[in-house]
Order: sequence, then C-alpha cells, then structure tokens
Amino acid sequence: MIKAVEMAKKQRDISVAEFFEKNRHLLGFDNPRKALLTTIKEAVDNALDACEEAEILPEIEVQIVRMTESRYRIIIGDNGPGIVKKQIPPIFGKLLYGSKFHQLKQQRGQQGIGISAAALYAQLTTGNGIKIISRIHEDEPAHYYLLKIDSRKNKPEIKDEQIVEWSKPHGTVIELDIEAEYKKGDISVDEYLKQTAIINPHATIIYTNPDLKQEIYVRATDIKPVQPKGIKPHPYGVELGRLMNMMKWTEYKTVKLFLMKEFSRVGPTTADKILGGAAVLNKTRPKSITREQASKIIESIKNTSIISPPTDCISPIGEELMTKGLQKEVKADFYTAVSRPPSVYRGNPFVIECGIAYGGELNAESAVTIMRFANRVPLLYQKGSCASTDSIIKTNWKSYHLKQSKGSKPYGPLVIMVHMASVWVPFTSEAKEAIAHYPEIIKEIKLALQEAGRKLGIYLSRKAKAKKELKKFEYLKKYVPHVAEALQELIELTDYEKENLEKALVEVLEDGRSFTEANGNQQEDLPDDLVETETHNELPDSESI
Amino acid sequence: MIKAVEMAKKQRDISVAEFFEKNRHLLGFDNPRKALLTTIKEAVDNALDACEEAEILPEIEVQIVRMTESRYRIIIGDNGPGIVKKQIPPIFGKLLYGSKFHQLKQQRGQQGIGISAAALYAQLTTGNGIKIISRIHEDEPAHYYLLKIDSRKNKPEIKDEQIVEWSKPHGTVIELDIEAEYKKGDISVDEYLKQTAIINPHATIIYTNPDLKQEIYVRATDIKPVQPKGIKPHPYGVELGRLMNMMKWTEYKTVKLFLMKEFSRVGPTTADKILGGAAVLNKTRPKSITREQASKIIESIKNTSIISPPTDCISPIGEELMTKGLQKEVKADFYTAVSRPPSVYRGNPFVIECGIAYGGELNAESAVTIMRFANRVPLLYQKGSCASTDSIIKTNWKSYHLKQSKGSKPYGPLVIMVHMASVWVPFTSEAKEAIAHYPEIIKEIKLALQEAGRKLGIYLSRKAKAKKELKKFEYLKKYVPHVAEALQELIELTDYEKENLEKALVEVLEDGRSFTEANGNQQEDLPDDLVETETHNELPDSESI
Repeated sequence: MIKAVEMAKKQRDISVAEFFEKNRHLLGFDNPRKALLTTIKEAVDNALDACEEAEILPEIEVQIVRMTESRYRIIIGDNGPGIVKKQIPPIFGKLLYGSKFHQLKQQRGQQGIGISAAALYAQLTTGNGIKIISRIHEDEPAHYYLLKIDSRKNKPEIKDEQIVEWSKPHGTVIELDIEAEYKKGDISVDEYLKQTAIINPHATIIYTNPDLKQEIYVRATDIKPVQPKGIKPHPYGVELGRLMNMMKWTEYKTVKLFLMKEFSRVGPTTADKILGGAAVLNKTRPKSITREQASKIIESIKNTSIISPPTDCISPIGEELMTKGLQKEVKADFYTAVSRPPSVYRGNPFVIECGIAYGGELNAESAVTIMRFANRVPLLYQKGSCASTDSIIKTNWKSYHLKQSKGSKPYGPLVIMVHMASVWVPFTSEAKEAIAHYPEIIKEIKLALQEAGRKLGIYLSRKAKAKKELKKFEYLKKYVPHVAEALQELIELTDYEKENLEKALVEVLEDGRSFTEANGNQQEDLPDDLVETETHNELPDSESI
Repeated sequence: MIKAVEMAKKQRDISVAEFFEKNRHLLGFDNPRKALLTTIKEAVDNALDACEEAEILPEIEVQIVRMTESRYRIIIGDNGPGIVKKQIPPIFGKLLYGSKFHQLKQQRGQQGIGISAAALYAQLTTGNGIKIISRIHEDEPAHYYLLKIDSRKNKPEIKDEQIVEWSKPHGTVIELDIEAEYKKGDISVDEYLKQTAIINPHATIIYTNPDLKQEIYVRATDIKPVQPKGIKPHPYGVELGRLMNMMKWTEYKTVKLFLMKEFSRVGPTTADKILGGAAVLNKTRPKSITREQASKIIESIKNTSIISPPTDCISPIGEELMTKGLQKEVKADFYTAVSRPPSVYRGNPFVIECGIAYGGELNAESAVTIMRFANRVPLLYQKGSCASTDSIIKTNWKSYHLKQSKGSKPYGPLVIMVHMASVWVPFTSEAKEAIAHYPEIIKEIKLALQEAGRKLGIYLSRKAKAKKELKKFEYLKKYVPHVAEALQELIELTDYEKENLEKALVEVLEDGRSFTEANGNQQEDLPDDLVETETHNELPDSESI
C-alpha cells in the first residue's frame, strides 16, 4: 500500500476537551495542589463577574471538605443573578462556551474554559460529575443538575435534572469532587481568598477550610464597583484577516456605515478619511470588498489620526479602595495607592494601579511581598514570567530609601500590589497566571510604582528625621535631673520647687522638639493621600510623653 | 426582564480557531519575529515526521522570500510520502486535527494544531490562504490546493483545487504569506535550522534566506533513525476518569481482555491480580463497570507491581550521532555525548541525552551556549522556564574544572546540548517551547550532564598538565645554547660538533617530556568516547617540534 494512504487512516479530529484533558497543565491543573486553587479560582471569578453584571453586592461561600487524604469536595455558592435553565448544561459541561469571549469588556473570565475545565478535571480524577443548583428569581423554581462532559464530543451529558427546594431567592451553588492537596502558604487557597478580599472590598467571602476553620472576609464598602462597559474594537488594533472577517459577517450594508458602527472612535469624517485614503467608495458593500481593498483600508487606517479608544469602559478600583483593602488585611504603619490614567496597548484600553504598605507587623528581614492582580483577580503562580514582577525589579527603589541589589526585588517590611484592569488582559497561558510583557504595560506599571515610591520615600525620610530628633531629646533629658540638682544647691530651692523645675525643663525641651519637628515636616507639604494609621504607629506619640 | 435571562442571550459557542486567533501568543505567534520562526518550525517538524514514518531520508527545502519590509513568503518542500487528496484540507485548514494526538509515540508534532495555526496567522495578517501541492506516488497525480480557514466554524474553505504538473515523484510543498520580521541571532530561523541539522544528522536541509544567501546542511549519515513505535498506555499513568472513558469506548467484551489489550505490560497474571484486588469478576463487561468498581481497579493497580513500560518505543539519537552532529556545526577541540538508559515519568517512557563541545573557536569569555531539544526539535524560546536550563544550573560544574557562580550557568568556551525523547513530551505551552519541571525528568538530565561533565573534567585536567609540561620544556630549552657554548669552550668542539650537541640536547629534553606525559596521561586510562579532533587541537603537537 502507498505509505500516505496507510498514514491517512490515522488522521482524525481532536476534540478541544480531549486536548485540554491531555494538556491539563495548560489550564492550571498541573498537580493536586494547584488544581485545588484553580478550581476555586474559576468558580469564585465567575461568581464575582455575575454579581457585578447584575449589580448585586456579592456574598460568596467557599467550602472545602476533606473526603480522603487526596480527595476533596469543593462547594461554592453565590447570591448572584443565577443562570437560566437551558444555559446550565453548556456553561458547566462544554469547553469554549460563554458570554465573555466575544466582548471587549473588563471581566475576570474571558475564555469560556475555566469552570468546565474544573468539571473535566473532577471527572478525570474522581469520576464524579459536577452538581449545580441555580435560581434566577424568587418566583422561579431552583434547578438542580448533575452533569458530566463527553470529552470526545466536548458536550454536556445530563445525568440528572430536577426542580428542588432552595432557600435562596437567586444565586448559584456548585459542588465538585476533585483529587487535590490542601496546604497553606504563599500559593494557597487561603492566600488567594485573602487577596481576593483585598482587591474586591465590596465582596463578602465566607470560607470554611478542610480543618473546619471559618474565615469571614466582611466587605469594607457598600459601594458597588462601576459597571464596566463593553466597547467596540479600535481601528488601530485590527489586522487584515480580522477586518475581512468582520466585513463578511457584518449586518451593515455600506462600508462607511460598517466602519462607523463596528469600531470605536470612527465618526463620519474619520470614515471618509479612511475610505478616501484607500480609494474605496463609501457605498461599497462590505461583503464585496476585495483583499487588496481591505489591505488598502488597513494602510489608510495607519495613516489616519484617530483619537484613542474610550477609557470609561475600564473600572479601576481607585486609590481610596485600594488603600482600604490593604489596611483591612495587612497590618502596616504606612499605606499609599496610585491609580494611573488610562492607557492603550494594541488598541485595548487599560489602567494600572498600585498600592504600597510599609512597616508595622511586616517582616523587615525579607524581600518585598508582591501581590499581582488582573481585573480584580489575584495571580499567584508564574511570578517570574509576569510583567508586574519584571517592572518591580526594573524600578530603582534605592531612591525611595529602600534596600535593593541590582536585578532584584527591593528588601524591607513592604507589600507592593499591582493591578491591571483592561477589556482584554494578555495572559501568558490559558491558566491566566501572568501578564505578558507588552512594553506599554510595563511602562505604565513602572510609572505607577515610581509615584507610589516617591510617597513612601517622603514618609521614610520624615520617619528618619523624627527618629533623630527623638534621640537628641532623650539625650538632653538625661541632664535635666543634674541641672535641677545643681540649681537646687546654687539658689537653695525646696524639693518641691526642684521637682517643678525639672518638669518645666522637660516641657521646654519638648516644646523645642515639637517646634523643630513642625518646621521640618510641615503637614501641609505632605500629599493628601499619605495615609497613616495611628494605632500601629511606631513613632513615639509626643503628646503622651 | 430578569437579569439572568438578559445575560443568557450573550452566551455562545467559541470555536477553537477563534480562541487561538485571539490568543495567538499561546501558539508562538506573539510578534512578527517569533511568528516567522514558528511557521517554519511547524512545517519542518511535520516534514521530518512524515519522512521518518515513511522511512525516507529527508531532503527539505526552506525558502524565505521578502515581499515587503514586513511581509514574507515562506515556501517549504519535502521529499516525504505526501498526503492523500482528501486529507489535505483538514490537515492544513482545521485546528485540532491530525494523527499524532491519539498515539503514544515519539514524534515532533503531537497536537494537531501547529501548521493550521500558521495558516490561520497568515490569513489574519496578510489575508492570503495557504497553498499546498502534494503527491503520494509517481503513478498518482499531484494535487494543488488553495485553502482558507473559516475561523467561526474551524473548518477549511477550499478556494481552489487542481491537478498540476510536478517534478517530484512524492512529497509536499507549502506556501504561506505572513507578516514577519527576519533577523539573525540566537533566536532565529538560521539558528533553528542549524540546530535541526545537528540533531537530525540524517536530514539534508537546503535553506535560502531573504537575502538570497543559500545554506546547505548536508546529511552526516545515511542511517535512518530507528522508527519509533507507538505504545499503549501503562496502567500506572491512568486516572479514574480516563479509565472509565476507555472502558466506555473499548471493543473488548470482558474487563480482563480490556486490561490486557488496552494497556502495556498487562498479561493474564497481572490482569488477574488487578481484578482480584478490586473484587471485580474477570468476565464483567467493561461498559457495565460502575464508578465504584473503576475506583477499586485504580486502587488495585497502585497495589500491584507491574513492570515498567517498554522503552524500545523511544528512538534516541545515540552518542555517536550526537557527537557527529556537534562536530559538523560547532568548531571545538573536545566533544563528548551521553545517552542515558530509558526512564519513566507518569507512565510515559523517555530518554535523556546530552552532548558537550569545548574549546576551539568557542567564546571563552561568555556563559555556556545551551541547545535544548525535544524529540529532535530545537527549543529556542522560554529558556528560563525549561527543565533543561534548570538542570544545567543545578549541576555543580566546578568539580569538572569549569567556572560557575552559585545559581548560574557555567562559564567558558562550552556548548551543552540536552535532548529529551519521549512518547509524550510535557511542554509548558501549546507553542512547545519548554519542558515542564517533572522531578523524574530533571533527575535524568542531571545524571546525563554529570556523566558528560566527568569526561570533560578528565580532558581539562589532562590539558592543564600538558600545558605545565610544555612550559617546563620551553624553559629548559632556553639553556641548551648556553650549555652547548660552555661545552664547546671546555672540550674544544668544532662549530659542527656544537650544533650536533645542541640537537642532541633538545632531543633528550623532548624524550623526557614525552616520557612524563605518557606516564601522567596513559591513553588506555581514558574513556573510549573521549573524542578529540586533531585539526583543531590547541595542544602542541610534540612530533612536529
């Protein structure tokens, strides 16, 4: 037989579920410990996204039950809008299905893979399906499903479906049995939930760990985050193939209308300019545009100045809430936060925010603790490959009075958090663990870090000065009794008079000190947002001395 | 309207082609430079795989034509077995389609994504489809196709198909126009092809770069690599969900037969032991096995001692060809190679090989050059995330007389190559750029490096000794004329006699040196495979002095 004919017999389709089943490390299911985190992360991210879209203050319950040494039951419930009956099977039982992929909008999820991948992993390791109860309104019934995934077809298999009694008026709860390992530490579920609470101060999270210890993160604010808007793509980000596809599928009848309606920042004048530059008639039907014409349109877009994409579609956390979040979970002396103005990479708007906490109960002997976030989701794995880590290393922290060796993170009692909010976060893998190294993104992160660093620098130099003053004061104070004694002898004071004199001398010293201090650190010179908590302050409280 | 109902309207399927179109950095198309390399790599890998399967000595032509500053035409042809007409459209026009995913076999490709992803990228950036000519036998016609990919459906669109005249009796040629950037350097097409030639000494590669410079890598051997065999999975690597799926789809009627036929290393006795331990009857139909029973079978597999998977399915390069490959492309003084015995990770057999070249024209002032390979494919990106790099850093090279600072690669005029051959290489991403950190793999790489390192160490200490001897000899030689002159005066020699005496003295010195050298470095003590090329030898050739 001809070899090619023999070889052809082995060719066949690979379902996307089979593909990820075999390559599950691509989705964050490399090992039992990571699988536990990924499963919970995907479910919590979805719950937060759903609540946000429905403008509900989220209340999320996470429960990990130890079944055997290596098998855990995960139960995650929310008070979100619920899921309509028909959508429950594909959302949890089909990879690459969802509402988020086709929108340019700031959301935690963006792929339509995560939660069904968790269900696939559960089925692979324990043979059990995923259980779901969801209800969309108090007047509607609650639906229960037991689903498996047919990985050869990438389709949900409904093993059971019922209407059930459920106490919640609306929301969703899911239950999965997975092979997992529960450990505390830097890269743990505990840490992920703590950081989630920091970056989502509007959410309440009730977490029961496998040892039945309950941790409740109460919301720090009742203000819901501004609902992010979906946007149309910006012409600068579009490529030839994508443009041709868009023209093939558009409902608009003329290419001018197509440009105006399917892109952001294209009005009639800009559309005329683009089409004029490409020598394409305004009334041409998009479907009849040739490859050569499309290519000229792309060229013409590059030569037309078009204003940047709208940035009100981004919903950053804001400096105040970033600080509140840090204060809630990190015991430090000093907190500051910076929220940069919006910027654009590859046609996608984004905002970088960063926060710094310093001193207090933080460990002074170790390298900085870095908390990385993307669209309000903590990133725990792949620290080394992330644009955030890279930007922190490349920032010169010595100028802000911190220790740092070349090519390393700074040292000291320090927490740095970096948040990227965007309509499309460029992750380095499907597991969404690290932000890719786009120069525009790195530049913005560095600018944010420098701004926050300067504020920290001011605080640290003030602190150093105050310490010096205190030392001087303590030194002079030692002489007060001797001076008083000498005066007692010289001008024959009574003991009572001597005591009063001593008090007076200390008062004079204190006044002098307050005076120099006030001069040296005029409060009005400090930036408004130099927040300092009184309770954990290491500085001596001069009023009480 | 109830929020969930409104939200449900946005839910929809995401095609795998759309997914990778939007996330193309996952496949190695992050930027124009990398896209060029990835496109060529996918095509060359496929050509080599096809030739190997058909037992043809590969002859591959790679041509990069510059169309504009940022647009290149890639033409890649082979003398492989060709592709049957019906298979051409799905192989090049559909993601996740192929013969390699469902086999456990040592191959370059394993996913069924690569070449269609390149076609998708071409279409996205230049709007052009992929052109293919393929012929399976001289008696059969050559088929020409022009294909595009319908990314919404992940299906090939046939834009043109014809029977054409073609000079080759069998083989395939493809042509793609892509947005790209051509640069030389460490991570370039030039380097990839050079390394491909090293690791595939049986292949001839004819490469024409965009500047019309032609580079021909002629094969170094006519021996075809041993054809790797596909194997069945080993029971130790199987998980519950996978076992249940296999039982659902098997054609075998009893669970005993199923175990014996669908797994490697399970004979009747082992099957009896497994089923006995699980309290499952031999004659049970696989389809009727419950989850609980399957779970018990998995438990029982863990408690049954089963011999390791067969390892003759792996086709390593071998020490001789590794050395030949290095000698062909790297000008050094010393070469050595080590091929480890097969080992197993997660039920998958694998072999680690490593080679070292030292001295000669290599740069003495820089860190080692690392060449990483997996199933005979050079890995150029993601150096830092690769198990190979990690193992090199963790090896103590100081004991082999090399410079190395802690936590770094060694320094010196050194090339280290590491090759992993396996039925399934665990890559860290779809772009197949780095090997994941499995402890079993890292252990084997380190053992290979240590073995090669010891051979290098012996060579280096011998070289140091020889240098010392030479210095001594040169020193003594300086005195010969003076001694001869003194003797001439003392015993009144003629000038002719004096000259003879000088010659004799030098001979005595040389003999003495050869004597100490032979004693200090008895050739028979050296390992057989300490290959040293005479031509590039820095050591003084004592015969010619």
